[in-house]
Amino acid sequence: GSRKRSDPPITKDLQVSLEEVYSGATKRMKIKKQVYSNNQYSTEEKVLSIDIKPGWKAGTKITFPKEGDQTPNNVPADIVFILKDKPHPKFKRDGSDIKYKANISLRDALTGGVINVPLIEGGHLQHRLQDVITPNTHKRLVGKGLPLPKEPGARGDMILEFNIKFPEQLPDTTKRRLREVLPS
Amino acid sequence: GSRKRSDPPITKDLQVSLEEVYSGATKRMKIKKQVYSNNQYSTEEKVLSIDIKPGWKAGTKITFPKEGDQTPNNVPADIVFILKDKPHPKFKRDGSDIKYKANISLRDALTGGVINVPLIEGGHLQHRLQDVITPNTHKRLVGKGLPLPKEPGARGDMILEFNIKFPEQLPDTTKRRLREVLPS
Repeated sequence: GSRKRSDPPITKDLQVSLEEVYSGATKRMKIKKQVYSNNQYSTEEKVLSIDIKPGWKAGTKITFPKEGDQTPNNVPADIVFILKDKPHPKFKRDGSDIKYKANISLRDALTGGVINVPLIEGGHLQHRLQDVITPNTHKRLVGKGLPLPKEPGARGDMILEFNIKFPEQLPDTTKRRLREVLPS
Repeated sequence: GSRKRSDPPITKDLQVSLEEVYSGATKRMKIKKQVYSNNQYSTEEKVLSIDIKPGWKAGTKITFPKEGDQTPNNVPADIVFILKDKPHPKFKRDGSDIKYKANISLRDALTGGVINVPLIEGGHLQHRLQDVITPNTHKRLVGKGLPLPKEPGARGDMILEFNIKFPEQLPDTTKRRLREVLPS
């Protein structure tokens, strides 16, 4: 046969939630392609099944060879899906770690308290604040992150950050007492 | 005469301090170039004088035509200086505005105080903190920035930000009193 031209790959984004990255998931993606056989063109719908393994990183490519449009003279294009992290309402991903920003009052930041930290596997973890929390404090909750892609039994960490809510205004009596109590 | 090839321009960074941008400045840049005349090559040192006008932005280009090396067959390259902001120990530039981050204690952030704000023209300005300062508070000191390049009589603003220094630890008695005083 004569030599056929390969069409360049077709890339498509595949949005995956952090929960799906945590547990693994199967995504079914419908494609439409032109099929050529017996000198006739037709359109075929097909469902490609993608097996997301726990811990896969954004940017991971999954290739389905030769699933592009067919013509008499081509080698159909590969279809390549590229993993993208779907934005999460609570968490940010950092490799295999998960970042979570807890809202706490200035009072709790200075004097301690217990916060509820949501977990990617569902549920919450109670975390007691011991030392003074500053706007730059980071805490690492070991093993509460995402599965490691090469060792899915192990997990990354959760990195706890803090958004300290200051009072918007304070009465003068409070200010006076704070001046007595707080170091200058 | 025969047509001559133009050498591509030679670009050089020109580091300028914010003080120089504020006042304007003359920079003398020494260059060395190959000169060709009477069938002979020689090396010439030359000083190019660059007149920085008040308020000029980073990225501004100043071109000295045909100051590159000479050969029998070329049109010497242009020398192009590109303004770069020299990092400043106190200020950051933001267009025609100047950002300054003041270090204040948590006590002053909550109860008020007076801070000394350094100025680009030298000296300081005393600024009284009235309301509660949070880590996200910005204040704009109008007209304390850099000259506007197209209207050097007018100036941008200083944007005052705050780095609030938290106490590293607090005695339990202080914590108890803070819990009474601060809103939850």
